Amino acid sequence: MAHKLVIKRSKKAGLAPGTLVHVGQHSDAEVKLQVMDYNAHQLQEYEISNPADCTPLLTSDTLSWINVNGSHQVPVIESLGSLLQLHPLVMEDILNTDQRPKLEAYDGYLYIVVKMLQFSEASQEIHTEQLSLILSDRLLVSIQERPGDVFAGIRDRLRSGRRQRLLHADYLAYALIDAVVDHYFVLLEKLSDEIEALEDQLVKQPTPETLTRIHHFKREMLLLRKAVWPLRELLSRLMRDDNPLIREETRLYLRDVYDHTIHILDTIETLRELLVSMLDLYLSSVSNRMNDVMKTLTLIATLFMPLTFIAGVYGMNFTFMPELDYPWSYPIVLAFMCLVAIGLILYFRRRHWL
Amino acid sequence: MAHKLVIKRSKKAGLAPGTLVHVGQHSDAEVKLQVMDYNAHQLQEYEISNPADCTPLLTSDTLSWINVNGSHQVPVIESLGSLLQLHPLVMEDILNTDQRPKLEAYDGYLYIVVKMLQFSEASQEIHTEQLSLILSDRLLVSIQERPGDVFAGIRDRLRSGRRQRLLHADYLAYALIDAVVDHYFVLLEKLSDEIEALEDQLVKQPTPETLTRIHHFKREMLLLRKAVWPLRELLSRLMRDDNPLIREETRLYLRDVYDHTIHILDTIETLRELLVSMLDLYLSSVSNRMNDVMKTLTLIATLFMPLTFIAGVYGMNFTFMPELDYPWSYPIVLAFMCLVAIGLILYFRRRHWL
Amino acid sequence: MAHKLVIKRSKKAGLAPGTLVHVGQHSDAEVKLQVMDYNAHQLQEYEISNPADCTPLLTSDTLSWINVNGSHQVPVIESLGSLLQLHPLVMEDILNTDQRPKLEAYDGYLYIVVKMLQFSEASQEIHTEQLSLILSDRLLVSIQERPGDVFAGIRDRLRSGRRQRLLHADYLAYALIDAVVDHYFVLLEKLSDEIEALEDQLVKQPTPETLTRIHHFKREMLLLRKAVWPLRELLSRLMRDDNPLIREETRLYLRDVYDHTIHILDTIETLRELLVSMLDLYLSSVSNRMNDVMKTLTLIATLFMPLTFIAGVYGMNFTFMPELDYPWSYPIVLAFMCLVAIGLILYFRRRHWL
Amino acid sequence: MAHKLVIKRSKKAGLAPGTLVHVGQHSDAEVKLQVMDYNAHQLQEYEISNPADCTPLLTSDTLSWINVNGSHQVPVIESLGSLLQLHPLVMEDILNTDQRPKLEAYDGYLYIVVKMLQFSEASQEIHTEQLSLILSDRLLVSIQERPGDVFAGIRDRLRSGRRQRLLHADYLAYALIDAVVDHYFVLLEKLSDEIEALEDQLVKQPTPETLTRIHHFKREMLLLRKAVWPLRELLSRLMRDDNPLIREETRLYLRDVYDHTIHILDTIETLRELLVSMLDLYLSSVSNRMNDVMKTLTLIATLFMPLTFIAGVYGMNFTFMPELDYPWSYPIVLAFMCLVAIGLILYFRRRHWL
Amino acid sequence: MAHKLVIKRSKKAGLAPGTLVHVGQHSDAEVKLQVMDYNAHQLQEYEISNPADCTPLLTSDTLSWINVNGSHQVPVIESLGSLLQLHPLVMEDILNTDQRPKLEAYDGYLYIVVKMLQFSEASQEIHTEQLSLILSDRLLVSIQERPGDVFAGIRDRLRSGRRQRLLHADYLAYALIDAVVDHYFVLLEKLSDEIEALEDQLVKQPTPETLTRIHHFKREMLLLRKAVWPLRELLSRLMRDDNPLIREETRLYLRDVYDHTIHILDTIETLRELLVSMLDLYLSSVSNRMNDVMKTLTLIATLFMPLTFIAGVYGMNFTFMPELDYPWSYPIVLAFMCLVAIGLILYFRRRHWL
Repeated sequence: MAHKLVIKRSKKAGLAPGTLVHVGQHSDAEVKLQVMDYNAHQLQEYEISNPADCTPLLTSDTLSWINVNGSHQVPVIESLGSLLQLHPLVMEDILNTDQRPKLEAYDGYLYIVVKMLQFSEASQEIHTEQLSLILSDRLLVSIQERPGDVFAGIRDRLRSGRRQRLLHADYLAYALIDAVVDHYFVLLEKLSDEIEALEDQLVKQPTPETLTRIHHFKREMLLLRKAVWPLRELLSRLMRDDNPLIREETRLYLRDVYDHTIHILDTIETLRELLVSMLDLYLSSVSNRMNDVMKTLTLIATLFMPLTFIAGVYGMNFTFMPELDYPWSYPIVLAFMCLVAIGLILYFRRRHWL
Repeated sequence: MAHKLVIKRSKKAGLAPGTLVHVGQHSDAEVKLQVMDYNAHQLQEYEISNPADCTPLLTSDTLSWINVNGSHQVPVIESLGSLLQLHPLVMEDILNTDQRPKLEAYDGYLYIVVKMLQFSEASQEIHTEQLSLILSDRLLVSIQERPGDVFAGIRDRLRSGRRQRLLHADYLAYALIDAVVDHYFVLLEKLSDEIEALEDQLVKQPTPETLTRIHHFKREMLLLRKAVWPLRELLSRLMRDDNPLIREETRLYLRDVYDHTIHILDTIETLRELLVSMLDLYLSSVSNRMNDVMKTLTLIATLFMPLTFIAGVYGMNFTFMPELDYPWSYPIVLAFMCLVAIGLILYFRRRHWL
Repeated sequence: MAHKLVIKRSKKAGLAPGTLVHVGQHSDAEVKLQVMDYNAHQLQEYEISNPADCTPLLTSDTLSWINVNGSHQVPVIESLGSLLQLHPLVMEDILNTDQRPKLEAYDGYLYIVVKMLQFSEASQEIHTEQLSLILSDRLLVSIQERPGDVFAGIRDRLRSGRRQRLLHADYLAYALIDAVVDHYFVLLEKLSDEIEALEDQLVKQPTPETLTRIHHFKREMLLLRKAVWPLRELLSRLMRDDNPLIREETRLYLRDVYDHTIHILDTIETLRELLVSMLDLYLSSVSNRMNDVMKTLTLIATLFMPLTFIAGVYGMNFTFMPELDYPWSYPIVLAFMCLVAIGLILYFRRRHWL
Repeated sequence: MAHKLVIKRSKKAGLAPGTLVHVGQHSDAEVKLQVMDYNAHQLQEYEISNPADCTPLLTSDTLSWINVNGSHQVPVIESLGSLLQLHPLVMEDILNTDQRPKLEAYDGYLYIVVKMLQFSEASQEIHTEQLSLILSDRLLVSIQERPGDVFAGIRDRLRSGRRQRLLHADYLAYALIDAVVDHYFVLLEKLSDEIEALEDQLVKQPTPETLTRIHHFKREMLLLRKAVWPLRELLSRLMRDDNPLIREETRLYLRDVYDHTIHILDTIETLRELLVSMLDLYLSSVSNRMNDVMKTLTLIATLFMPLTFIAGVYGMNFTFMPELDYPWSYPIVLAFMCLVAIGLILYFRRRHWL
Repeated sequence: MAHKLVIKRSKKAGLAPGTLVHVGQHSDAEVKLQVMDYNAHQLQEYEISNPADCTPLLTSDTLSWINVNGSHQVPVIESLGSLLQLHPLVMEDILNTDQRPKLEAYDGYLYIVVKMLQFSEASQEIHTEQLSLILSDRLLVSIQERPGDVFAGIRDRLRSGRRQRLLHADYLAYALIDAVVDHYFVLLEKLSDEIEALEDQLVKQPTPETLTRIHHFKREMLLLRKAVWPLRELLSRLMRDDNPLIREETRLYLRDVYDHTIHILDTIETLRELLVSMLDLYLSSVSNRMNDVMKTLTLIATLFMPLTFIAGVYGMNFTFMPELDYPWSYPIVLAFMCLVAIGLILYFRRRHWL
């Protein structure tokens, strides 16, 4: 139960809206900006540290993708924001990594927030990373929380020259979102493998640890749904709103990724209901085993208590107990005890306890 | 708990949208294309291996139904796609057998995905198979995952000449969907028979295995609903959207199959709630039997513990225990023990424990 | 748990849409058609066996109500359908008695399906019977599954001459639906009486049979809701759609029966939640009684185990046990045992176990 | 569990719509009509028995409020209905006291049904009483089930002359509904006081009676929601529909009472969820106490069974048991028993059982 | 379980709508009005006691923020209301501190109610305080229940001169609402910290007190949701309605605080589901521990009951028990007892009970 459900943003409380404060994991790493500037014929790729170096890209007629590898340095975001003339609320939201996925239309650009998700096998936890996209006519800026992403395939396509469709910023934005959503499937596969393994274990040999793990996965599912659910509305609006930044042609592709999102939400819901059903199964199997334990106890007690009582009776020290002196008394009592035991066992058999 | 809730599609992650990769069960079988080409007066039926052989069908004025018996061979789908000028996303979706049922309108054709479901009595599991339909003016292409389907009745009607209404591609598409949905009823009948048999068993003699089976059917119901639920929206749109490929006359029939789908969803929901109620019943009956076991134990302990204690008292070896020497002590103690036992039994009777 | 949740319709699977197959309870009884043909001044009432005999009714300017007492004979429905020029899907639906309540508008007539419900006191089950209505300008055809219905009141009004408002087919259709819905109230009354009796029994003396009955009523409620829920939409559309067959005046009456339907659905929901709460109550009372049983066991064991142990100690056969020979040992030990018992009882009192 | 969830209306089944039959509690009391007839300058207040005496009020230009103190006498309602030219369905609904709150617009008047609720401290139950309002231009008729209402405040305002705003029939109707809704708050306060007292008791000392009371309040909540929920839609329509009988000015007030209704529904929902959580708490605390009982039993058994066994061994009558004759055997065995007991107690301590 | 779910408002029942009665915590403190009157160049700040002193502010062309530190004194609110010409219902709602958050548009001003929430670490409870806002063109009036709020940051900005954007009343109103909502995040952080600490404790060492705390937090979550949920609709309407008091520019900011509200509601829902899952975990762990206790008991009983019985047999006093006199009998019986014990232990091992 390590990671937090609620990210600390209390240091923001009381500040003016639009005040730039970083909310999220602290880091001292320098922030690098990866630039890929291309048209159908050529591609320039380089890394810079100062957003101001991007100024020429704003007026060129090539398409530029600026990928910012970290949102923890307020000055970098501030300088980026003033370069692109971003609304203060947009800059605030880029820095605050505890955002819901959302789409906001401003004059001349769209601001999109989605969540990149990573499943850590070690801690069995989902790690989230915020991805902000700023989409304008000939420019796409993507801001991640830290280096490392799921865009290797897109970079390869750009470098290899298969960039016909990637020549428009809206398609490039779609491609990034599609890569993020495709990775959700990888995550769901891993999660569902873990959950189905747990299910097998539950049916074969449930332990108290099984229970803690069911709870753990229910928790992860809550987090996952919280991250994916708003994406549905985001994509629906991106697909339907009449924004000139999104071409008709790209809408077909957005419809596809929208379908994927709904598919993912369906699967999350199915896994959640499966986990609930698994918990019921666990509770019932605990009850069943308790029943078995109780039956054993009751069998033993019911068998030996009457016998011990009989032995107790003939252990009494009364002077006048005529049976004690008959020579056949002892074997008769032993035989009677056997009869009682056999009778009880037959009775248990009939009640299906044995 | 054999079949997977989530189909492996991770090999697709990171690839460009529209990249053709088969997602689903691997197979090496050759893919055959069954062609039925007909008008009111004649019918030609043959099998081919190369989609390119269908070229003449595209321009003829007969109606052609091309049924592709397998979606696991990428080149076949690729050649089919280029023949019909399909959008890359459509080809991708045909190959990816982990789709939600959906309807997508493209220029000149409709792309429809539905799920064929089969209930395996042996494993008590539902097997799903993806059916893709491409509906254009004089052509219907259906792509299945493997040979074997529920369309025998339609083929018989075509061969027997009763094909008046089947002379339009939209009605033929409706007839295929209707056959698929009709088969859902067969599936639901089998499932509900199994569930009601389980219910009877639950009332008569519940076992831990009953519990595992309830969980199993809840799981199958989750899968079933996931496959059928999106069909409702698909049919509603097919029925209401103003697509020229669907004639007014066919909409009446689509309304009928839409009603069937809602009926099926109602029944799924009812069976799900029944399963939940059955689990409650199971848990309660476990508690009841535990109660019975505990009562037996308590009865035995309450009866024999006092008696054993009395016997223990007169088994003590004190030198001065005057009762021990009275000639009537033994019978009196035995009688007293009987009295205690009878008293306790009467007490239990009054508390309704016996 | 006798009646089926899903009616066998598998024999229909694979047949062409519109194929006429009877789905429902088999019967060999002859189908009679009750005709009531009337205007403000006179009424003719007779019974026929052949739908073709109704031909003159179609062109007369009187209002005709044809009540078909059975839907199990395909030829009768077929001949009726050809007489009235019904769409093949309508004829199919009349024969298939496993329909959801629905409303379908065709050229010149409305097709309405509702469910008549009967509560059998003997089996404590709800029996459903499908009622199909075909409403055209001067004609109303009603098709039931078997003789026996809730329309006696309407027939009496027709015969007695109080038929002013019944001179229009739409009002007559409303009157039939209203009679069906009114009967739902009777059913709900009986059900709620049974459920409240069960509730009393649950509070006073719950038995395992109580549990099975709660489950049984939950099941009946599922069935009931499935039959009534679609009626709400049906009536809402009948009331709001601009069909010329429904006069403005009749819409006021339809609003009334629509309100009744919502009232019934509210009551079903309330009874369902009451049943859920009753199950919780049952489970809790089982736990409570188990607690009582366990307490008794623990009291007895805690009281007699120490005492039996003391007796056991003085039953040991050591040669050198000086206490054994003191004349006051026996009474002292007995007194000590009493003290232990009293002490334990006081302890239990303080912990509120006695 | 005294009052009925479903009011007997079966005697209505089979009758023609609009047939006047009283459904509700039977009573023989005479029905009195309280008339308050006023304008800004004067007020006339009197009581009559015959609705026909109200005829002059219909044409006067004063505002008249006729309050009918009972709906159990069919002739009174019938004569009132013919005086006001009410639709037969309205008269039927006034007599049938098992209505959902609803609003129906007819030519020249509105028909409104709301529920007056009373919490009886004695039986801890909510009693409902139907209030029908007939609102026309210069006349408001209110029909209650029995004398006694929550309108004393309104009557006082009318008599005292502060009747400026009450000079319009729509505001007077609003004032009556507002008084009814205000009384719901009183009811909710009492209910929530009872529920919170129950919650305290649950945390301190739960008893089986606590459980029955939780169930009882859940039941009352179901009833309450059923009575209040439809009011929300009623008021929303009254506020938004373009009926000329409701002036713009009054709509502001209706918005206010609409807000109150939503507030009440929120509170009902909150109390319902609280009751569910209380039931969980109860069940858990029962389990906890059972655990305590079981621990005590296990402690006692684990302590005394081994000791009793040891005593039993030295109570055996073998001739050759050398320990029996050693002089230190007895004290050594006693000491060993003490050691065993101390060891077990230490073991329990370590496992936190003591 | 200290604070009330329902605030006493029964004293209002029966009064005319618009009657001014204070509903909430009684207080005798004097009510102070803090006035901040400013334009871009200067700021005047002072405190007054009599609302009538604000008259000049109404006609000045500066922006005035009047903060009323208490709503418990009816005359103050009355005089404020007559100064601003408020509708009687608005004055009534200001005094009644048991309002849902809501937005009401009147001629010339908007009336907004939101809830300020405070988490008390001591009692682990959420305290709510009603904040009423009256927004007109050049004036904003805020009425709190008591002194002490979350607006320190806004006052600092006004005093420090960074008041460019605060020069419009709508932005000032937004800033107040934003400060209130920002504080919800602080509250949620504290609550989620407490809940996650409880979760850790639950996994490590659950106690009955854990259970009471889970219930407590579920209760607080109900309260929280009730206070935040209506805010969503309030902000959505404020953002979308065409009210001239809200400038286009401010709507962007309102969209931002709307997003925050949805984020908060998501988090509340997630925490609620986490609490439900924690309760399940608790119940299961109680069952698990009970199982352990029962196993211990059964082990002990199963081990010692047979042994005690054997000892009892050889404690019988029959004259003819030949084994008693054999010299090896005693060691053989002891060895046999050991064998039985070892056998049982091995049996338990195999059934995984040890």
